Amino acid sequence: MAGIGDDCAVLRLPPGHEALVTTDFTLEGIHFRRDWHPAESVGHRCLTRGLSDIAAMGGEPLAAFLSLALPFNLPQSWVNAFLRGLLTLAGKFGVTLAGGDTAESPNGVLADIVVLGSVPKGKAIRRSGARPGDGIYISGEFGGSAATVQRMMKIKRKLKPRDFPRHFFPEPRLELGRILREKGLASAMIDTSDGLSTDLAHICEESDVGAEVQAEAIPRAGIGRPAHEVDLHFALHGGEDYELLFTAPRGKRIPARLAGLPITQIGHITRRRKIFLRNKKGVGYELLPQGWEHFRQ
Amino acid sequence: MAGIGDDCAVLRLPPGHEALVTTDFTLEGIHFRRDWHPAESVGHRCLTRGLSDIAAMGGEPLAAFLSLALPFNLPQSWVNAFLRGLLTLAGKFGVTLAGGDTAESPNGVLADIVVLGSVPKGKAIRRSGARPGDGIYISGEFGGSAATVQRMMKIKRKLKPRDFPRHFFPEPRLELGRILREKGLASAMIDTSDGLSTDLAHICEESDVGAEVQAEAIPRAGIGRPAHEVDLHFALHGGEDYELLFTAPRGKRIPARLAGLPITQIGHITRRRKIFLRNKKGVGYELLPQGWEHFRQ
Repeated sequence: MAGIGDDCAVLRLPPGHEALVTTDFTLEGIHFRRDWHPAESVGHRCLTRGLSDIAAMGGEPLAAFLSLALPFNLPQSWVNAFLRGLLTLAGKFGVTLAGGDTAESPNGVLADIVVLGSVPKGKAIRRSGARPGDGIYISGEFGGSAATVQRMMKIKRKLKPRDFPRHFFPEPRLELGRILREKGLASAMIDTSDGLSTDLAHICEESDVGAEVQAEAIPRAGIGRPAHEVDLHFALHGGEDYELLFTAPRGKRIPARLAGLPITQIGHITRRRKIFLRNKKGVGYELLPQGWEHFRQ
Repeated sequence: MAGIGDDCAVLRLPPGHEALVTTDFTLEGIHFRRDWHPAESVGHRCLTRGLSDIAAMGGEPLAAFLSLALPFNLPQSWVNAFLRGLLTLAGKFGVTLAGGDTAESPNGVLADIVVLGSVPKGKAIRRSGARPGDGIYISGEFGGSAATVQRMMKIKRKLKPRDFPRHFFPEPRLELGRILREKGLASAMIDTSDGLSTDLAHICEESDVGAEVQAEAIPRAGIGRPAHEVDLHFALHGGEDYELLFTAPRGKRIPARLAGLPITQIGHITRRRKIFLRNKKGVGYELLPQGWEHFRQ
């Protein structure tokens, strides 16, 4: 089933555009914990995962499809709040919830979000376009989401979502992605859902290049109240920041702010297929992608 | 994640076409049981669910996206056989597996299949086009899948899949859907994934009409070896037959076979918004949609 009132949703793409499709799971016990995450946050983050992928291609989102399996004893109020979180974000970006599927879950809340978007033909920003000499840029600040998870793990209770918006209500960088595509600034792009080290490795692998990154150039997020700057480890390896990581040819002037976000150069692309991290003293070591640890109950 | 090697899959629709999107869960313990269904069958049925929705709109499938969450202790051989079942069917209909998502499942195998298809602009066959006087037609035979489930429930063990292909390896009726759309024969259409009574009710609801159905006109499937004709109850209410149910204006001549399948008129659309079932003696009673019972462990 998908398409409210039909077997499929029927959607028209803007003339001269091609389709973008992305699909992302949100699973209880893996991507969130019901005792730590308010339902609004779960719904918001569920859709952010999909919209952020559209942003990373420089695309425009058209419609979302939600497959949702719920345990039979889940309170209706939880579902309502989940949908409120999801639909509020959808409304903000003009995205229609155009269909999906529902089922009873044998265990825990299971959601799969599909986003259909579009981009002018041939203009999608791929991961494979980075070239030696290109600068490496990131939007926003890093590590805030993972450091929030770590704090909850440590204190073993929930936090106030409004004090930790980077984790509970991350915003997809759609406007930034669109601007970079329209102005032809980025040679390659990815969203940082898996963590900087892993996502940069994806770009390097797909582009068949390496990279050199300056550790102290990476803007680290402040979390909590009073705000506390996160450790470098979280900024390097923590996932779910949903910022954009992109490369740009040396000749392109990249503004210090775009779409209201700070844009920071953190390094450059190299020919040698390894990623090196340099500290303040110029000492370098190889940066290996470290998988992002999700919740484990 | 979706798009192998990029944040999204990028797909071009044929000129003058619009997009069709459908999404369907396949959950262990709800849609299949690992002890009763070979992994090939689970993969095949997973994709059939999506392709059948494309068929029901008269569309052409372009690409599939698989979100798959697996328990950490699932044998790799199971996953390989699941993908073999899915990809064999995909290959048969020229559908590319273009992306998806993977995760660790906290409990049981969870799959969500998304199919992107296309249809010439304005030509999708909707559920809402049935008019009083239209004939009601179905392809193939009914009740075979549900009766197979019932038999497994009763004997509490698995059956030989090759003796029960209607349940284990149902075929999406893509060619039939396309022919009906190209020849402009159908006024409304749906696939019978939920069962005849429920799916006919969907057409009536969306078209704001009623229906009269002749019980003995419904072709009932034969299952097992030797083949045994299923009870009327399964033909009326059993789901997952994945045949097409469509309506056609009185003036249209509908061939007795299309795309190699028998096509049978089982009744007609009425103005009064109820569905009546008539037996051989002409005695009628109201046919209420009866939800299709999935597996329960």
